[in-house]
Amino acid sequence: MSIVLGPNQYGKAEVRLVRVDRDTARHRITDLSITSQLRGDFHATHESGDNTGVIATDTQKNTVNAFARDGVGSPETFLLRLARHFTQAPQVTGGRWLAEQYGWERIATGASAGAGAAAAAGGVGHDHAFVRGAAERRTALVHADDAGLTVLAGLRDVTVLKSTGSEFSGFPRDRYTTLPEVDDRILATDVTAWWRYAPSFTETAGPAEYDERFATVRSILLETFAELHSLALQQTVFAMGKAVLEAFGDIAEIRLSCPNNHHFLVDLEPFGLDNPGEVFFAADRPYGLIEAAVQRSEDDGEHPVWSTIGGFV
Amino acid sequence: MSIVLGPNQYGKAEVRLVRVDRDTARHRITDLSITSQLRGDFHATHESGDNTGVIATDTQKNTVNAFARDGVGSPETFLLRLARHFTQAPQVTGGRWLAEQYGWERIATGASAGAGAAAAAGGVGHDHAFVRGAAERRTALVHADDAGLTVLAGLRDVTVLKSTGSEFSGFPRDRYTTLPEVDDRILATDVTAWWRYAPSFTETAGPAEYDERFATVRSILLETFAELHSLALQQTVFAMGKAVLEAFGDIAEIRLSCPNNHHFLVDLEPFGLDNPGEVFFAADRPYGLIEAAVQRSEDDGEHPVWSTIGGFV
Amino acid sequence: MSIVLGPNQYGKAEVRLVRVDRDTARHRITDLSITSQLRGDFHATHESGDNTGVIATDTQKNTVNAFARDGVGSPETFLLRLARHFTQAPQVTGGRWLAEQYGWERIATGASAGAGAAAAAGGVGHDHAFVRGAAERRTALVHADDAGLTVLAGLRDVTVLKSTGSEFSGFPRDRYTTLPEVDDRILATDVTAWWRYAPSFTETAGPAEYDERFATVRSILLETFAELHSLALQQTVFAMGKAVLEAFGDIAEIRLSCPNNHHFLVDLEPFGLDNPGEVFFAADRPYGLIEAAVQRSEDDGEHPVWSTIGGFV
Amino acid sequence: MSIVLGPNQYGKAEVRLVRVDRDTARHRITDLSITSQLRGDFHATHESGDNTGVIATDTQKNTVNAFARDGVGSPETFLLRLARHFTQAPQVTGGRWLAEQYGWERIATGASAGAGAAAAAGGVGHDHAFVRGAAERRTALVHADDAGLTVLAGLRDVTVLKSTGSEFSGFPRDRYTTLPEVDDRILATDVTAWWRYAPSFTETAGPAEYDERFATVRSILLETFAELHSLALQQTVFAMGKAVLEAFGDIAEIRLSCPNNHHFLVDLEPFGLDNPGEVFFAADRPYGLIEAAVQRSEDDGEHPVWSTIGGFV
Repeated sequence: MSIVLGPNQYGKAEVRLVRVDRDTARHRITDLSITSQLRGDFHATHESGDNTGVIATDTQKNTVNAFARDGVGSPETFLLRLARHFTQAPQVTGGRWLAEQYGWERIATGASAGAGAAAAAGGVGHDHAFVRGAAERRTALVHADDAGLTVLAGLRDVTVLKSTGSEFSGFPRDRYTTLPEVDDRILATDVTAWWRYAPSFTETAGPAEYDERFATVRSILLETFAELHSLALQQTVFAMGKAVLEAFGDIAEIRLSCPNNHHFLVDLEPFGLDNPGEVFFAADRPYGLIEAAVQRSEDDGEHPVWSTIGGFV
Repeated sequence: MSIVLGPNQYGKAEVRLVRVDRDTARHRITDLSITSQLRGDFHATHESGDNTGVIATDTQKNTVNAFARDGVGSPETFLLRLARHFTQAPQVTGGRWLAEQYGWERIATGASAGAGAAAAAGGVGHDHAFVRGAAERRTALVHADDAGLTVLAGLRDVTVLKSTGSEFSGFPRDRYTTLPEVDDRILATDVTAWWRYAPSFTETAGPAEYDERFATVRSILLETFAELHSLALQQTVFAMGKAVLEAFGDIAEIRLSCPNNHHFLVDLEPFGLDNPGEVFFAADRPYGLIEAAVQRSEDDGEHPVWSTIGGFV
Repeated sequence: MSIVLGPNQYGKAEVRLVRVDRDTARHRITDLSITSQLRGDFHATHESGDNTGVIATDTQKNTVNAFARDGVGSPETFLLRLARHFTQAPQVTGGRWLAEQYGWERIATGASAGAGAAAAAGGVGHDHAFVRGAAERRTALVHADDAGLTVLAGLRDVTVLKSTGSEFSGFPRDRYTTLPEVDDRILATDVTAWWRYAPSFTETAGPAEYDERFATVRSILLETFAELHSLALQQTVFAMGKAVLEAFGDIAEIRLSCPNNHHFLVDLEPFGLDNPGEVFFAADRPYGLIEAAVQRSEDDGEHPVWSTIGGFV
Repeated sequence: MSIVLGPNQYGKAEVRLVRVDRDTARHRITDLSITSQLRGDFHATHESGDNTGVIATDTQKNTVNAFARDGVGSPETFLLRLARHFTQAPQVTGGRWLAEQYGWERIATGASAGAGAAAAAGGVGHDHAFVRGAAERRTALVHADDAGLTVLAGLRDVTVLKSTGSEFSGFPRDRYTTLPEVDDRILATDVTAWWRYAPSFTETAGPAEYDERFATVRSILLETFAELHSLALQQTVFAMGKAVLEAFGDIAEIRLSCPNNHHFLVDLEPFGLDNPGEVFFAADRPYGLIEAAVQRSEDDGEHPVWSTIGGFV
């Protein structure tokens, strides 16, 4: 028996890349945080500091920047380019490339918001001035191993809230149960989700398809959250995932992680006031945490990509 | 000579209040973080722990919640109610009430986005399901002292970026200067601003006027950022403030604090590539920091409210 | 084919528990953030909102607090109590209990730091006044599944730095490589580690053994970081893990995640100055990221506990 | 009446400087975040983008780095050097230089912790390997205006807790008061303090005097927190400040800002358990906030340095 190197990976994390597409006066910006991590035969550096095979993390960063010169496309296709490049090195047998994208919107201005040239060019808002959108981020991940490339897409911190249409009751009561049953509560969460594209999608999808698909999945998730009368956050989470799989046969699986951002009804009785669902305290910690995968019945076993995702999803 | 108590204030910070207006099926939510701080004669508690005059910070929190039962209105009017209430206590000679408001938007759904009942009711989007908007926050502050009540309104962390229309040159070069002059750069900042309403505004304004004014000032700030060809972030900051004062005679003064969120053009020459303003590195630290007040020439001296604001603004 | 519920877990996250042991005048405090997550048969709540089997997350929080009434012991033994309690419910087939512990030190005071009663009582520092120690946290995790209970111990964000004794060279150079080789650099990282105790340890260990073992492993990790002349952060990471496994046969495996917190030598030549390893810029992003497991050769396959850890470790 | 530029300042924020003193094998490291802000006649850049007088923020950063080549000394003396340098420019009439210092401790190793050479050399721990200490930071600020240079020293986020020796009662009860009186509670806060040195100190102090004074003031603050039986956090805050002024006649004034980090006794009665001050919930928000200046009676009026400090202190 001896002590040996187990699973390992290394790379450059959070390369903050902003790409400006300025082929016309109407600029587009893509704002990304990219992480590149390589897997393979790296025993020598771990065991003796022999770096012969170590593609420097600085080189990985440079490669991200250099590839951006040709345009980013969608986050998924950009990561696929990186994955294919790095896995050409013989010592690299796999890896993991992650992108988080920040949203920007065009600033509305008198000129551009009008019915003139900009609108005619297909949009409103200023040509080259932008304001940061919601705190939520679009995410993408490409995983490479002996079996090939896997593409996940996702979103993080999409904060949503329902002011009614949510209840929670029927749960068991034991010595430690004090929570009252409620038939009307605020339901609020920060949706984090990852969905795995089937090969039938990734084999043909280009940037436009990835972008469009992302937008549609996001809409389905939000609309399901909004429309379902919720008896438990678990029910809402499962329904959100199921709706996505029902809509798209080429999405193989989806995982969601949703904190229950508690909003406690404030007791106003000591002040001689009622509180018919109007005044709430938004708590920080602790919070509930609901995590689930929604899958297709023919899928058995856990896809290896999930072991590379931080946390449950 | 002796050692004495100087300026002091105390209160409850960051009361996280979510108010649901549910008088119709089309709910409205107001999501606030409220801080209440009192000033006055509090020598006894400091010097001997005699709390006879100390309105407990817990009581201040309760008061915030109880007042919300009647509705919030605008952040400014809600803080004015708190200020008037707390300054009734004889030992309280002044104070400072601060609100930060988080934005929410209605989730677009099939039913509500259509041309039916919801749209007829004056809007689109779901009746009671919301998604958190941009990370930026609307702010308000009411300051009370012997001279009366002063109202500030503001915004924080409005992140904006211009992908062209910004240059920086003509600055002096000394032994420590290495920065090249540039005639085209990315200009990006997180706008924090506070403006002070003149009594002529606050004497008559109700919630609707505060809300409308806030929206218009925000638009002016963004539009000015977008439209001005910038020779220095200082020029942009001053122009933003000046545009607000020009638009509204009943805004007495505005202060802005704007980091220069550096986006460095990546040198791709080592890779045999040019970089015509397309690939940038978004740096974290250090960052430039530009802060300025824009005033009216008849205003001399510093209004005491500014000493209660964290930082320059 | 149908759409089905896959792996799932739920619970209460970040219960902020502070326990004061006050059986003598010399108090002890234990400051923890506890997360409890249950796994099992929870199809009904996901699929139809039937909560008959859902032990409320609020009940889980209450249980944490109630159990603390009997004392916490070590984080590991406290989590084991929770795991054994919750898995008694027939619908609960497993789970995951996580603790993060914040460190506190006694405040040095004139009386207690002396050679009198307090020192005689086995220590120095004040009896009931404490100051928060380093930002690092001690961590523990108990995982339950059909195979029984597994105990991990760990630490997070132990920030360390060597001002010499680190080099990086011999790495391959391709089109995208610009990094110069260096024979003397700052090496800095935030150590996150998890180690898995073998059953031979957990079967007999009580709180004192867990506490002592944690302290010794932490010392080994730091001492190895300090003493090894580093040719690569990978070499340092592997050596740190190996030293732990060599010291303790009843630690089965250890995983480490270590960012490379880059400290770039500032180029002072433009100012007519040399810089012999004295003035550095501490960068934020991007950063290198080195992650590795160190194992025993007879261990093959991945222990299921790792799939429940956020990220690589 | 016209619209004019009011108070303004600009500079480079959070220059992350790590200085290694390596004149002997026993290295010392100084880890700082430096902010430099200039005030003066900058109308031209604000009003027309004429940057003739604008010492670029990049130049300010370079100057910080270049000056570090000669050593840092104490944060206060380093900032004084910067202040004297920048105010030589005729258009610069004042400014504000801020430092935050992160603490590091030597890693204990077998060799260096012993009684041998290292200990003989005046210390224990490794010669060039360090571990980050508490999250607290030492701070310093130099302010320049027409009246000359003012030096503040301070500390941030020194988190302290007393598990007994604190009560709160005797406060007034109105319609909104629900807080019970308590004669034994946890008192916990994060101390932020700034003290202003009198000219009699700054005229002669060198780095050693600033370092020693900082250490002593920190000890006094902590010891006072520990020793005082507290009837209100206000009483503790005032006593802490007073003790510092009593100890040092050449400290002119001190200001403190201390959140009341609430620790709520958990109600265990529903579970059939008592809770004699043992199990607490550490709340995040809202929190109390106590802020006070402690001064000498002969000091009247507010020193202009305070207007440049973020928040109350």
